Amino acid sequence: MQRCELIRQLLAILPPDSVLYETEDLRPYECDALSVYRQLPLAVVLPCTEAEIIEILQLCHRERVPVVARGAGTGLSGGALPHAQGILLSLARLNQINEIDPLACQARVQPGVRNLAISQAASSYGLYYAPDPSSQIACTIGGNVAENSGGVHCLKYGLTVHNILKLRVLTIEGDVIEVGAEAYDSPGYDLLALLTGSEGMLGITTEITVRLLPKPESAQLVMATFSDLAKAGEAVANVIQSGIIPAGMELMDNLTIGAVEDFIQAGYDRQAAAILLCESDGMAAEVTTEIEKIEHILRASGAIKVEIAQDEAQRQLFWAGRKAAFPAAGRISPDYYCMDGTIPRKHLARVLSQIERLSAEFNLRCMNVFHAGDGNLHPLILYDANESGELHKAETFGARILEICIAAGGTITGEHGVGMEKLDQMCLQFSDAERELFLAIKAAFDPQALLNPGKAIPSLHRCAELGAMHVHHGQTSFPELPRF
Amino acid sequence: MQRCELIRQLLAILPPDSVLYETEDLRPYECDALSVYRQLPLAVVLPCTEAEIIEILQLCHRERVPVVARGAGTGLSGGALPHAQGILLSLARLNQINEIDPLACQARVQPGVRNLAISQAASSYGLYYAPDPSSQIACTIGGNVAENSGGVHCLKYGLTVHNILKLRVLTIEGDVIEVGAEAYDSPGYDLLALLTGSEGMLGITTEITVRLLPKPESAQLVMATFSDLAKAGEAVANVIQSGIIPAGMELMDNLTIGAVEDFIQAGYDRQAAAILLCESDGMAAEVTTEIEKIEHILRASGAIKVEIAQDEAQRQLFWAGRKAAFPAAGRISPDYYCMDGTIPRKHLARVLSQIERLSAEFNLRCMNVFHAGDGNLHPLILYDANESGELHKAETFGARILEICIAAGGTITGEHGVGMEKLDQMCLQFSDAERELFLAIKAAFDPQALLNPGKAIPSLHRCAELGAMHVHHGQTSFPELPRF
Repeated sequence: MQRCELIRQLLAILPPDSVLYETEDLRPYECDALSVYRQLPLAVVLPCTEAEIIEILQLCHRERVPVVARGAGTGLSGGALPHAQGILLSLARLNQINEIDPLACQARVQPGVRNLAISQAASSYGLYYAPDPSSQIACTIGGNVAENSGGVHCLKYGLTVHNILKLRVLTIEGDVIEVGAEAYDSPGYDLLALLTGSEGMLGITTEITVRLLPKPESAQLVMATFSDLAKAGEAVANVIQSGIIPAGMELMDNLTIGAVEDFIQAGYDRQAAAILLCESDGMAAEVTTEIEKIEHILRASGAIKVEIAQDEAQRQLFWAGRKAAFPAAGRISPDYYCMDGTIPRKHLARVLSQIERLSAEFNLRCMNVFHAGDGNLHPLILYDANESGELHKAETFGARILEICIAAGGTITGEHGVGMEKLDQMCLQFSDAERELFLAIKAAFDPQALLNPGKAIPSLHRCAELGAMHVHHGQTSFPELPRF
Repeated sequence: MQRCELIRQLLAILPPDSVLYETEDLRPYECDALSVYRQLPLAVVLPCTEAEIIEILQLCHRERVPVVARGAGTGLSGGALPHAQGILLSLARLNQINEIDPLACQARVQPGVRNLAISQAASSYGLYYAPDPSSQIACTIGGNVAENSGGVHCLKYGLTVHNILKLRVLTIEGDVIEVGAEAYDSPGYDLLALLTGSEGMLGITTEITVRLLPKPESAQLVMATFSDLAKAGEAVANVIQSGIIPAGMELMDNLTIGAVEDFIQAGYDRQAAAILLCESDGMAAEVTTEIEKIEHILRASGAIKVEIAQDEAQRQLFWAGRKAAFPAAGRISPDYYCMDGTIPRKHLARVLSQIERLSAEFNLRCMNVFHAGDGNLHPLILYDANESGELHKAETFGARILEICIAAGGTITGEHGVGMEKLDQMCLQFSDAERELFLAIKAAFDPQALLNPGKAIPSLHRCAELGAMHVHHGQTSFPELPRF
């Protein structure tokens, strides 16, 4: 179908202000927060109702037009990058909270509702929605479902998939399906988990039933200072192994500490090799006991200083430093490349040392600031895009980090998704048989590959061309990589 | 392929004691714990290694022979019922614990390892495996994965899917795939969740990496006695809504209490309409505070007596009554039919009243003893198979209970699976579009439908013939049923 005819048909479904097609109107949608990839779509549609989306999907299905869904565009892997021959389906206007049920501790919300808005709306009932990606002011729950987002507190409270009960989803044919249940378990294959994190490739979510939790009675934060990064890594494993699951457990290295202190004065020790922030929440008595145990373990793990926040203001200040780490990186480097990989916690110390060696090898600084309790690394590679070759060097450095993660038995993404960015690494992470299954599942939902084509799951052809050797979950040796 | 030729080829792969084909040898495999369905397979194979299973699958795939996997055969929905034209693949001999990693708090085990054996092996490290189906002495971890089993403690610690990290799985072609990761999240579609609970229809698991938890420092039990069943139901919702997640929360009605007290003297009040057992575990200080709060809520919810176990012996005695409920049913009735459905907790009181009314309508006694915290009902319908028509009446009664569960926004199974038993109810629970997706996913893994054919997912044809009206997760009205 010609572009003009497509736009004409979209305008027959939607009011004029819901269809964008002028280049200047399309421009804001050309990328998500990973701006190295940019592409204009044929048109952007901004439906207000599920009924409109059904008609849009029926049209696209009939005419074989690719459909890329978009929430707030805060994604970091290019998952919402438009398709040159497709439409961009913005879900921003489906932003209603349909119901809050305080008795059942759940809420039914539309996909365009912002993550934080759910907790704000539930607040008067003493409830909140637990997953808290750092973009939670802006990102939408629909995008969280598509990426299976995490956050600082997901160590204790789980990822998005652990905090949703039901999804209402449209297939590419425009059929409504409901997956999951308000009850504890659901028969049939677990489509709720399958759809969560599927990066918009299997269906379009139009309603999400989320689980709400009672706000913890109390929260307390411990800051531990280390003169050795590896020891901080070991301390993380020691805390978890003791049976404590902290509400949050974040690690920052010396470069991060300095950048943060220059930006806001959080009270971190600039001389420290690493700082570990460890939070406990729950009933007051539980928090007190847990904080004592954590303090003991951190000291026994070699912390040179352990401070418990004196009051709520200091707790907030300690956290403020962690939350300012990304903007702080922007202040000490013209550009930075944020990686996202996970490793088993027990390998934290070793992998951090390896990243340090790579940093020297590539002659690029790397800030380590991450969800240590989950083993979810976020190395920020600092570079200058105006220096010839530095972007390429940063990308190569980043790819090497992901390879190290795989070799350590980890994965190439913790919470940012695969999107466009990590298609090649998917060839390393998974075998042919595994990727064939992914493709078969995709075909089961969307045989014409119209939903977000070209993302998340690489074609067998791409992996064959890449010629990369599959690292079977850390089991197979990978000659050029350090062994575990 | 003729049966004799099949057996000959199986004997070429396996040693003689690993292939059973005489009728008397096949007889023990003709059913699982749901003995109303019985069927002899062509042969039973008992491989000892993954390599043997690969050859068996390649043979069956090539010759289009159905394959039904079996763990310990403790399943309650007929999921391991043999196929008349197929082989039964017993995984009982793959019973090795390959590794326990106390640092990472995980274990790699073969599918034939018994659930309890994992905790026993991990015990010396102070660790245990949390999901505890009532059959945990006998049932195997492979069967738990196939059914996504729960147990008394899954309210706090989750179902099987929440306690496993990785699966090694063989496809029907005999390809090895690994799904999940030792790290916190994994890219690609969530095949770990998809395979867990798939009732042996997508692949054959050969290794499971389970998460181990540190044994709680302390556990304490509260027993609350109610003069009104509905009030006990409300008390459950009140406890959960307060933000407490008990380690276990079990409800028994008057009929159960009497049967249990006649059998073992657990110290329950025979006059009570209902008894609620509510356990707290964790750090000692946490348990003390939580038990106080639970006690307060139970009293406020109308409990006429609240007792805290005086010592470990009394705690075990209170639990012993609950654990003896099923055999106690066997003592007061020649036969019983155990149902398994889940409902949102807030509807507990109403659904229990409805079951009471159905009991009068069918003139069959029904014992209610169940995982109240999860809303996971286990009504035991008492009947006498020797009385003409009673089995049919019990089955109709059971089907009505499941319909009530669906109408209440619940599901037709909490933890026992669909198997053979609930194929028809799947037509009520899911729409055509939803079941079509299930079938498409099945075809993505197993296009010739050789793995456990005829189970768990009904054909579109079967549902059409049944002519039953789909109850869309409690949204659609269902005329002959009480409304919510």
